[in-house]
Amino acid sequence: MPKSSKYVYFFGGKNADGKTEMKNLLGGKGANLAEMVNIGLPVPAGFTITTEVCTYYYSHKNTYPNKLNSEVLKALNNIEKSMKAKFGNAENPLLLSVRSGARASMPGMMDTILNLGLNDTTVIGLIKKTNNPRFAYDSYRRFVQMYGDVVLGLKPENKNDEDPFEVILDRKKRKYGFKLDTKLTADHLKELVSEFKDEIKKKTGHNFPDNPMKQLWGAIGAVFSSWMNDRAIVYRKLNNIPAEWGTAVNVQSMVFGNMGEDSGTGVAFTRDPASGENIFYGEYLFNAQGEDVVAGIRTPNPMSDLKKENPKIYNELILIRKKLEKHYKDMMDVEFTIQQDKLWMLQCRVGKRTGFAAIKMAVDMVNEKLISKETAISRIEPNQLNQLLRPIFDLEEKKKAINQNKLLTKGLNAGPGAASGKVALSAHDADQMASKGEKVILVRIETSPEDIKGMNASEGILTARGGMTSHAALVARQMGKVCVAGCSALKIDYKKRSFTVEGKDVVVNEGDYISIDGTTGEVLLGKIETKPSEVIQVLISKTLDGKKSSVYKTYASLMNWADKIRTMNVRTNADQADQAENAIAFGAEGIGLCRTEHMFFGGDRIMSVRKMIVADSLEERKKALAELLPLQRNDFYSIFKVMKGRPVTIRTLDPPLHEFLPHTEKDIIELASELKIDVNVLNLKISSMSEFNPMLGFRGCRLGIIYPEITEMQAQAIIEAACDAKKDGIKVKPEIMIPLVGHTNEFKLQEKIVRSVAEKIMKIKKVKVNYLVGTMIELPRAALTADQIAEKAEFFSFGTNDLTQTTFGLSRDDAGKFLPLYVQNDLITNDPFEVLDQTGVGQLVKIGTERGRKTRPNLKVGICGEHGGEPASIEFCYRTGLNYVSCSPFRVPIARLSAARAVLNSKAKK
Amino acid sequence: MPKSSKYVYFFGGKNADGKTEMKNLLGGKGANLAEMVNIGLPVPAGFTITTEVCTYYYSHKNTYPNKLNSEVLKALNNIEKSMKAKFGNAENPLLLSVRSGARASMPGMMDTILNLGLNDTTVIGLIKKTNNPRFAYDSYRRFVQMYGDVVLGLKPENKNDEDPFEVILDRKKRKYGFKLDTKLTADHLKELVSEFKDEIKKKTGHNFPDNPMKQLWGAIGAVFSSWMNDRAIVYRKLNNIPAEWGTAVNVQSMVFGNMGEDSGTGVAFTRDPASGENIFYGEYLFNAQGEDVVAGIRTPNPMSDLKKENPKIYNELILIRKKLEKHYKDMMDVEFTIQQDKLWMLQCRVGKRTGFAAIKMAVDMVNEKLISKETAISRIEPNQLNQLLRPIFDLEEKKKAINQNKLLTKGLNAGPGAASGKVALSAHDADQMASKGEKVILVRIETSPEDIKGMNASEGILTARGGMTSHAALVARQMGKVCVAGCSALKIDYKKRSFTVEGKDVVVNEGDYISIDGTTGEVLLGKIETKPSEVIQVLISKTLDGKKSSVYKTYASLMNWADKIRTMNVRTNADQADQAENAIAFGAEGIGLCRTEHMFFGGDRIMSVRKMIVADSLEERKKALAELLPLQRNDFYSIFKVMKGRPVTIRTLDPPLHEFLPHTEKDIIELASELKIDVNVLNLKISSMSEFNPMLGFRGCRLGIIYPEITEMQAQAIIEAACDAKKDGIKVKPEIMIPLVGHTNEFKLQEKIVRSVAEKIMKIKKVKVNYLVGTMIELPRAALTADQIAEKAEFFSFGTNDLTQTTFGLSRDDAGKFLPLYVQNDLITNDPFEVLDQTGVGQLVKIGTERGRKTRPNLKVGICGEHGGEPASIEFCYRTGLNYVSCSPFRVPIARLSAARAVLNSKAKK
Repeated sequence: MPKSSKYVYFFGGKNADGKTEMKNLLGGKGANLAEMVNIGLPVPAGFTITTEVCTYYYSHKNTYPNKLNSEVLKALNNIEKSMKAKFGNAENPLLLSVRSGARASMPGMMDTILNLGLNDTTVIGLIKKTNNPRFAYDSYRRFVQMYGDVVLGLKPENKNDEDPFEVILDRKKRKYGFKLDTKLTADHLKELVSEFKDEIKKKTGHNFPDNPMKQLWGAIGAVFSSWMNDRAIVYRKLNNIPAEWGTAVNVQSMVFGNMGEDSGTGVAFTRDPASGENIFYGEYLFNAQGEDVVAGIRTPNPMSDLKKENPKIYNELILIRKKLEKHYKDMMDVEFTIQQDKLWMLQCRVGKRTGFAAIKMAVDMVNEKLISKETAISRIEPNQLNQLLRPIFDLEEKKKAINQNKLLTKGLNAGPGAASGKVALSAHDADQMASKGEKVILVRIETSPEDIKGMNASEGILTARGGMTSHAALVARQMGKVCVAGCSALKIDYKKRSFTVEGKDVVVNEGDYISIDGTTGEVLLGKIETKPSEVIQVLISKTLDGKKSSVYKTYASLMNWADKIRTMNVRTNADQADQAENAIAFGAEGIGLCRTEHMFFGGDRIMSVRKMIVADSLEERKKALAELLPLQRNDFYSIFKVMKGRPVTIRTLDPPLHEFLPHTEKDIIELASELKIDVNVLNLKISSMSEFNPMLGFRGCRLGIIYPEITEMQAQAIIEAACDAKKDGIKVKPEIMIPLVGHTNEFKLQEKIVRSVAEKIMKIKKVKVNYLVGTMIELPRAALTADQIAEKAEFFSFGTNDLTQTTFGLSRDDAGKFLPLYVQNDLITNDPFEVLDQTGVGQLVKIGTERGRKTRPNLKVGICGEHGGEPASIEFCYRTGLNYVSCSPFRVPIARLSAARAVLNSKAKK
Repeated sequence: MPKSSKYVYFFGGKNADGKTEMKNLLGGKGANLAEMVNIGLPVPAGFTITTEVCTYYYSHKNTYPNKLNSEVLKALNNIEKSMKAKFGNAENPLLLSVRSGARASMPGMMDTILNLGLNDTTVIGLIKKTNNPRFAYDSYRRFVQMYGDVVLGLKPENKNDEDPFEVILDRKKRKYGFKLDTKLTADHLKELVSEFKDEIKKKTGHNFPDNPMKQLWGAIGAVFSSWMNDRAIVYRKLNNIPAEWGTAVNVQSMVFGNMGEDSGTGVAFTRDPASGENIFYGEYLFNAQGEDVVAGIRTPNPMSDLKKENPKIYNELILIRKKLEKHYKDMMDVEFTIQQDKLWMLQCRVGKRTGFAAIKMAVDMVNEKLISKETAISRIEPNQLNQLLRPIFDLEEKKKAINQNKLLTKGLNAGPGAASGKVALSAHDADQMASKGEKVILVRIETSPEDIKGMNASEGILTARGGMTSHAALVARQMGKVCVAGCSALKIDYKKRSFTVEGKDVVVNEGDYISIDGTTGEVLLGKIETKPSEVIQVLISKTLDGKKSSVYKTYASLMNWADKIRTMNVRTNADQADQAENAIAFGAEGIGLCRTEHMFFGGDRIMSVRKMIVADSLEERKKALAELLPLQRNDFYSIFKVMKGRPVTIRTLDPPLHEFLPHTEKDIIELASELKIDVNVLNLKISSMSEFNPMLGFRGCRLGIIYPEITEMQAQAIIEAACDAKKDGIKVKPEIMIPLVGHTNEFKLQEKIVRSVAEKIMKIKKVKVNYLVGTMIELPRAALTADQIAEKAEFFSFGTNDLTQTTFGLSRDDAGKFLPLYVQNDLITNDPFEVLDQTGVGQLVKIGTERGRKTRPNLKVGICGEHGGEPASIEFCYRTGLNYVSCSPFRVPIARLSAARAVLNSKAKK
């Protein structure tokens, strides 16, 4: 950075030395103050001492550059001229505020010093000016306290220790029998000023500096020193802010909103930060200071009232609003003060907003030609789209319920949206109750593939165990169900058909109403009304015409722009035709993962699956598989039909077989009688299949290698369905995916089976279908030997759920005991099952992609783990050169937006 | 390869064109035949057609080089001169054998053709020469059959189909009512010759070639063709033999050991291949052919008898023996034939030997100045050392038991050695029985850490489940116990206190004797006597003086040489002082892995451990830990004392806590009463701790992060013990190892705890101990981020057991269902838990080492997985630059030898 020729930047009146672009030199606050002056807003005059002075200060043994003093004096002189007051003057004293202001917002640095310049002389001037001795002495009292605390270091290190000034203040109140500070009179406050000064003398051995210039330099020094205090160092470390940046110091003249009924203060947003509506939104109070608005002691008035109360000021603000949006091209959040009927702008920054508002504003601003489509896209956090898609609680209703103490507990926000329904404690019950037209919340300790049907019948799922990527969470998101998972306070008693909540004196019985908010993780007793979002009403339930819904139009515009920018495809993880149909409505361009095993639970087929598993001979097993063949073929046919020629990646059987076997005594007896075998024999069989670590056991392609007939049946069902579909005029693009490959030979064996079955079927059916055979890369060894695997594999799909489990040596089902604490204590930044761990797991994704493409340059590479729907992970995929991401249907819009942002961000970095 | 100027290499009399070094050109057999001639041994004359002719043959549409015919004729002429007989001569016919002979031994190629040159004319000459018409016609009959089968292709492809010649032979025998071939007279055999020829005419349409030269070229052509037959192609593929190598053809004159009582045949070894003794060892038969010795119809005589029976031939052989060893500098295996009182050498190759013999011979030959120490070391497969260390069965006794049908089943040879004892079906019973002085074999479905005490009390361990690195196998090897694991045929019924064996009609009750051979995996009913090896008697039981044991002296010499060559250190995995003491006796230079959790099971301390685990508060947990502290401190002190300043790597608590909790109802009730808590509460606690995938769950450093007080206690115990030891004049080098680190922050947190405890203790004790803090690299993520971890870690130890599990996504406890089949079907070459997977897991070891050293160039790196005792893996560690390997005590000698061989092999490759 070239050294700037000046150290002090003045702003005020109609002139400012700085501007927004000088943020690095002036800090965020200083640059924005200057910019407001530049665009003609009324800003109390002041100056900024640059960050370079801070750097100089630390590299020169805490001294300042020679020129600084004269520049400060000059700037101070300009303030005096602009504000028509004199610093240290007994008649018309100028008072100042001193604040730090680094390049990035940095809580943990110095507190603000207000009312600087007051002493026993100037306080008289202030009284004269305001005709309000109590106001003057209260300001003086506050200044001495602040200065003593912050500049002279009397503020205790430990938050629990007492502030010596507060002790004195309390003593004073006790003495006069007051409870509130406001009862103290001007005289009391005057006494306090003196007592505060005595305390300072006692604690520091020095007199309180009465000289205003001495006060000013003390405050400036304190700001620079605070750059290296412990809190600031820790904060910088956590947020990767280099110490070399330094801080600027902002010195600004004070204005007061509490100088009577012609004074006031307020905050405003240039648009509604909640709804995004293009209206002026804000609150104000007369005869008040900023803190009064914030503290909530008095209720502020809505901005619309100001129009009547003070149309002049209101119109001024309306003009300012327009100017700000035109200049900053964004919704701005401003603070203002009216001092004796004059408006002053104190702060202006980009306003915070809800996701809903963010989207609406961004799209509106494009339509208003305020910003480009690219800017609109880069302004929306992809997850904010959720607010357009999910059913929601009426916020007022929820607030009411919480106030009635109906909040039972909080779990993980595993499947966003809101749902209310009757508690069902088993999938079977959920199914039964739903079939009677009731809305159901399925409540389980955890869910398993057997529960699929009941989960599908429910409005929402609530579990006591399992994390963000537990079975319940995964399936719920894919189904678009609301889900709160890992709610460890729930104590479910299946026998008593009820649950209790730790620390709550309540028993919730099956059939009772509860409500769950999957966006926040809240679990509430009773029913709260929900409504589907307009976008869903248009896209999925088709109960609303898109042309009539402004929310849908906003959504559609945004998605349209995103699609034009992005280069990476977005597919969906879907196991059934209806899921696939939803996904297409959300813009999916193919299926990235179709889990065949989920089909195994539908209807009566589970019995055939179980027969296949407990078969004692190849013959028996083949017989059972033959029963499954037509069912699977139909499944695939209906998916091909929905997908209309879009690629469909079908994974061969993956989970450990014991997952399909019954667990309860009753079910085991039933199965034994169905299979006509002894219960003890069946029990032995089931127990012999149990595993120590099922995640690392007999599953994935290992099944198809030991039982090739399973892969054969599945390949046959896929290719037959594809041939049939093609005959019926439906385009098909099947991509057969072999799971859990760790060694190239595993893939070769399975690939050979698939191809030989396919060739045979196509010969019989006399149809030629183009199909690919590829693999999931979900084991570290697969990534490390991707060059070998790519010799035969035509595509890779990174299964980052399992890859994360193996790379970290971390079972997602068991991580609940420590992983949340890891994240809480900043040991790791994110749950690696939510956000792809780019440092570790990401290396393997990179290695796998590079090595795979080294062998096969046109290798198609995608990702089908849960990370395929997570914005930061999608950006990583884009940077790594993946062809597509695949995610659950309801995350497809998020992925489309993320993929577009990835392109923009990567351009911005170049 | 430059084209050789000649195609045919003659050998015979005193001259040979070839030599050993020409193996590539002449094939192994041809080169050795030539070499025998070169060193003056009597070899029936012959010639070798080079492998280059084979290459030519295939690159020139199955034709020969022009010069070949004349060279063959010339060589044939030389044979005739040397053997004083004429090819195709009616009076004195020369008969030939034709054999293939590639560079590498290749079963699957052409069978040998014997007696080539016979026809209706020359057979008369043979009768005249031998005066034995039956011999002559039998030779003729065999020749026609062999030629028909092999050269003319009448041998059926399928082994189960009938050989047409055997059909004719059987018909002939039936016709005359004979059962044995030997009953057939010369006339019968003459008839057969003619019938065989008719069959050939019938099957091929051509007459059998009577012309000897035609016969010869037919046989040569058949050898070259056989190079490309299916069996040969498959064999080459499996053994990585390039097709370009080609085969040579060896044509050699026939000699007969069955020409009467002055003829004979034998095989001999220049030393005893079983014991390694420097004696001439072999067997012979008079008036017999080689196949008679092999077939076992007649019992051959020991070589010592020949001294009396035919001192001339015996002395000739003794001279040859000396010549061979002097020339080849190794123990040779020879075949010889005596034809009419003349000795001919037919074959000579390096002799196969037992491990025991290999070691003895190698050491003896160094002492005899025949070979260098380096050669000795490179000749011994490290695992052969086991034969010097393990208790063994008397082989005769075992054979007898097997003949009595006492072999019950076979399992995995998980812990070498032999053991006999009474069956105990629980660790508790084993302990009880052993305390009464009984020898016990502990038989369990599987073992768990709770069984340690019972395992230690047993002679051997037999399990029905688990692989080569199951808990039983790991612990057994570390304890030096015999172990047969994963014996799936065992059906153990704990209730009935007995087990049965699948497919055997036997019930073995607790208390019955069984015997297990951990070197072969055999499980036998009844008692078989065992004896400890001499080396063990010297080193461990100290019941024998090393100076008096020649076996020990052999062992000691070898180890001494190995230690001088190797550069990598060898440590041991030991958890107790007695194990460490054994390991030092075996040459361990430190402890590479001391698992503190194994100490948790001794005596009453398990109760304190359980209290600690089920504690509801930090206070309770600390109380329980305080009970453990002095016990752990004592453990560490006694280990430091034994190790006398050698480095001791101590791993902090690693296994999931639920492993320490009771599983049976009885034990749970006992614990509840001890802890004075409700059984239901305890049950709930235990079940809440159960995990889906314990291997990937709450274990390793995750324990110490959530419960820092555990790490604190362990660090305190280690450092206090070290300080105390140092005060007592014992040198100490503790290296504290944090397990299962996946993220650098995990290590940092644990390291900080260890260091702060250590500093505190040393201040209190007023002793300064040098200690290191490092980590296990056992997760892929740790290897991939080793650069970050090495910022704080002072050493790495690769835990390749877990690293293999996570890299492959393979639980070693569950892999039994498919991994053995993978190995059987050549899907993978080795069980990756036995032999380090260099392609996959090895990459991570390399990456981890390189990145770790990039941050910290002097980083100490070792391996403490089971692979640290496996020869091929040790070589990999050497090549990767590791500082040490660590293995179970009984494998330390193997590791020392492997480390030396690694140096030699790596030099050889340069």
